[in-house]
Amino acid sequence: YGRFGLDYNDANDRNVNGVSKTTITSRLRLQFDMSAETDGGVQFDARFRAQAESRDNNPGTAVFNGARFGVVYNGVRVNVGNIIGAVENMPGLYLETRTAGIGIDGAGFVSVVGNVNNEYFNWDAYSSAGSGANGVEVLYSANGFTGHLSYSTDNDSTVNPGVPNGNAGGPDRIGVMLAYSWNDFTVAAAHQSSDIMWEDKTLVSFAWDGGQYGARIAYADNDGIDKLGIYGNVDIGAASNLLLFWTDEDAVSATDVAAGRNDNRDAIAGSNQQEGSSYGIHYSYDLGGGASLEAGYRRASNDNDTFQVGAYFSF
Amino acid sequence: YGRFGLDYNDANDRNVNGVSKTTITSRLRLQFDMSAETDGGVQFDARFRAQAESRDNNPGTAVFNGARFGVVYNGVRVNVGNIIGAVENMPGLYLETRTAGIGIDGAGFVSVVGNVNNEYFNWDAYSSAGSGANGVEVLYSANGFTGHLSYSTDNDSTVNPGVPNGNAGGPDRIGVMLAYSWNDFTVAAAHQSSDIMWEDKTLVSFAWDGGQYGARIAYADNDGIDKLGIYGNVDIGAASNLLLFWTDEDAVSATDVAAGRNDNRDAIAGSNQQEGSSYGIHYSYDLGGGASLEAGYRRASNDNDTFQVGAYFSF
Amino acid sequence: YGRFGLDYNDANDRNVNGVSKTTITSRLRLQFDMSAETDGGVQFDARFRAQAESRDNNPGTAVFNGARFGVVYNGVRVNVGNIIGAVENMPGLYLETRTAGIGIDGAGFVSVVGNVNNEYFNWDAYSSAGSGANGVEVLYSANGFTGHLSYSTDNDSTVNPGVPNGNAGGPDRIGVMLAYSWNDFTVAAAHQSSDIMWEDKTLVSFAWDGGQYGARIAYADNDGIDKLGIYGNVDIGAASNLLLFWTDEDAVSATDVAAGRNDNRDAIAGSNQQEGSSYGIHYSYDLGGGASLEAGYRRASNDNDTFQVGAYFSF
Repeated sequence: YGRFGLDYNDANDRNVNGVSKTTITSRLRLQFDMSAETDGGVQFDARFRAQAESRDNNPGTAVFNGARFGVVYNGVRVNVGNIIGAVENMPGLYLETRTAGIGIDGAGFVSVVGNVNNEYFNWDAYSSAGSGANGVEVLYSANGFTGHLSYSTDNDSTVNPGVPNGNAGGPDRIGVMLAYSWNDFTVAAAHQSSDIMWEDKTLVSFAWDGGQYGARIAYADNDGIDKLGIYGNVDIGAASNLLLFWTDEDAVSATDVAAGRNDNRDAIAGSNQQEGSSYGIHYSYDLGGGASLEAGYRRASNDNDTFQVGAYFSF
Repeated sequence: YGRFGLDYNDANDRNVNGVSKTTITSRLRLQFDMSAETDGGVQFDARFRAQAESRDNNPGTAVFNGARFGVVYNGVRVNVGNIIGAVENMPGLYLETRTAGIGIDGAGFVSVVGNVNNEYFNWDAYSSAGSGANGVEVLYSANGFTGHLSYSTDNDSTVNPGVPNGNAGGPDRIGVMLAYSWNDFTVAAAHQSSDIMWEDKTLVSFAWDGGQYGARIAYADNDGIDKLGIYGNVDIGAASNLLLFWTDEDAVSATDVAAGRNDNRDAIAGSNQQEGSSYGIHYSYDLGGGASLEAGYRRASNDNDTFQVGAYFSF
Repeated sequence: YGRFGLDYNDANDRNVNGVSKTTITSRLRLQFDMSAETDGGVQFDARFRAQAESRDNNPGTAVFNGARFGVVYNGVRVNVGNIIGAVENMPGLYLETRTAGIGIDGAGFVSVVGNVNNEYFNWDAYSSAGSGANGVEVLYSANGFTGHLSYSTDNDSTVNPGVPNGNAGGPDRIGVMLAYSWNDFTVAAAHQSSDIMWEDKTLVSFAWDGGQYGARIAYADNDGIDKLGIYGNVDIGAASNLLLFWTDEDAVSATDVAAGRNDNRDAIAGSNQQEGSSYGIHYSYDLGGGASLEAGYRRASNDNDTFQVGAYFSF
């Protein structure tokens, strides 16, 4: 798909960091899906993507990501390589917009309850521009139920090899997710356990999709930092949708900060000030033919404002 | 498309720079075009390319370029990202050959009146191997008339932010181009204004395409350095075309050199010696099926000789 | 194609080099072939690939390789760019498996008689992930006979330009290969001459493919180091194939080691210990639809053990 538009971000300033407050944000993604099926009905597939992005007026050439391989048989899927990740795959984690966030490029995804205290996206997830978690995962879906188990390990440091449970190597992560849908409701829960600090987390979500109206709540315990989110959206007329969200992030404990964790507390100088509430609004207008107009504003809990408007189209 | 051939360049020498005088020059380009159309007839499109090149016996792996996004409605096109650029898009700027220059890889494009004094391609142009100018442009075509306005800005340096009109950041460029075609004639003019030194330029061209014969003159004022070009080509028999060109580049002013500009004056030691005349000849033979044989010789104004012969094919 | 599986390698150790003994090994390759044909029946073609790999738990994003261009007319093919290479193209060089080696990723290709003494793949060969030899080659096939001549040159060092026959530049290589097939037999020979040390080599192979059974012997003189290989495979039932190989690598001469060559002698401390025998076994089970199960074990002459099992599918 392609999407492009204008991004107003008050954290940019031509006189401070050299970047205009208003810049072009864009992404062009082309996905290559390949598959084969055995005589016995086992399906093999593989996927990679080429994607070009521009953010904050830093345009990039397109790059490939890492490959994911899958085997599917009787509703069970096993993936290896650049896996989806159990936490990433939890229903009710992202916004009900085409960008899964606010505006054209997601605007930092402050709406996600798993993102706190500058520890954003610290779970295994499919990477569109990098090699991704080199992991293994099993998914099973039947009768509205979905189960998902993922595992990844990174090589340890050769300087300090084999150090257990420490920072010597990249993280080893285990994720598990369960979801169940019935009528207009979906309930989901996920947990990640990691061998590096501050990455153990538990997330739950409960969503209602009543057609014209939709509502959702989500909550995460991010290794001691709670974040709660409330979301609602409504169709207006035949082609428009309006979405609102509000989240609240708790303060990190002083003990964790003393142990080396980032500080998000509002009253502390030098902290990232992410404690507290974020909120945002997003408007989408369907132009037909796979194209739509997308506009969104959000205020992050550290008082950063962004407004984005642009076009999004599928091909 | 693909093109490959042999390049003889007397600036290469196995005993001086380690490169044989005769080397392989090649390019393989694969273009990805994507589009979508709304119910209201607005067309969205996007493009990127993957391209592999070899020059001077330095082969490269293929790389993607940056993406360009477009919206078209009622003859008006708005592009963002890796834009075409108003100057680049001026009719009568490039040679009437498949490579838009002499030989197989353009042989340095000394035939272009906008290229002087080692300040080559210093205007916004679509980049096939890089991310390109991250700009915005508007194009309008109707009844033989084409108008084109382009704008790009680069982030400023963070060391010396906000310095106006200087080298602290990349260039901010505005380009405008107007062209009009009637019967066998096309007249065009373009102007670029830039916030860094020596990039303001004005170009004009006048071309006649009489079927078997074609002729063109072009002229540019490159921030004080004039360059004039005269071009002619003739079809020979059913499949051959012969093209000749001659250009003359003026000397840079001593004031500009004192202000830090490159020196192109012939009489000066240490200058690039590009003052004066370049000329070249190109022969093309159409093999049918989208393939052709291309051969060209040119002598640049700094006395560099190149001769190239090879094949060019579309797919 | 795609292939992925598990690799057990006793040279890896979480406590020594930080890599688990058992890791994911995978490759996803997408090939782009383009062609055009002239009215006179001359065919032009070009190829490049995008490939993503993971070995030893180091996942990579997909990358393009360098391009190869070809002209074909009346059974004669001329390629330029990322050429195949005459030695690489010799029948009977690689194993009769889908990976051309043991297991899922070839397991180091110790079965190849041209690979000795840590001087692996020191001949011109098509590169799937790099730019390849920037060379020229001519191939001719008719009535079971194939002839192949390849040439590549690399730029010399600019520090020490034009030094003949030395390490100042990359290698200049000439390769020649002849093969002949009749009934179930194929005999082939190849030779490479290089201007850098230890790369002159001569290889021969003789293969018999009797349908259910196949057998092959191969031999190479790798600039003084002989390597002999014996290979056999048998179809078992409708879908299985079992392959065995044994190779024996001679010791390097003490004179060569004194002149700076790698040491492969078993009795010497600090040598790579590659003198002596390697052997392996590979099992393939065809799942239909282009997919198969592949499993292989091999013990290299330096006592390195690997076992791999996984899936391989075409698309």
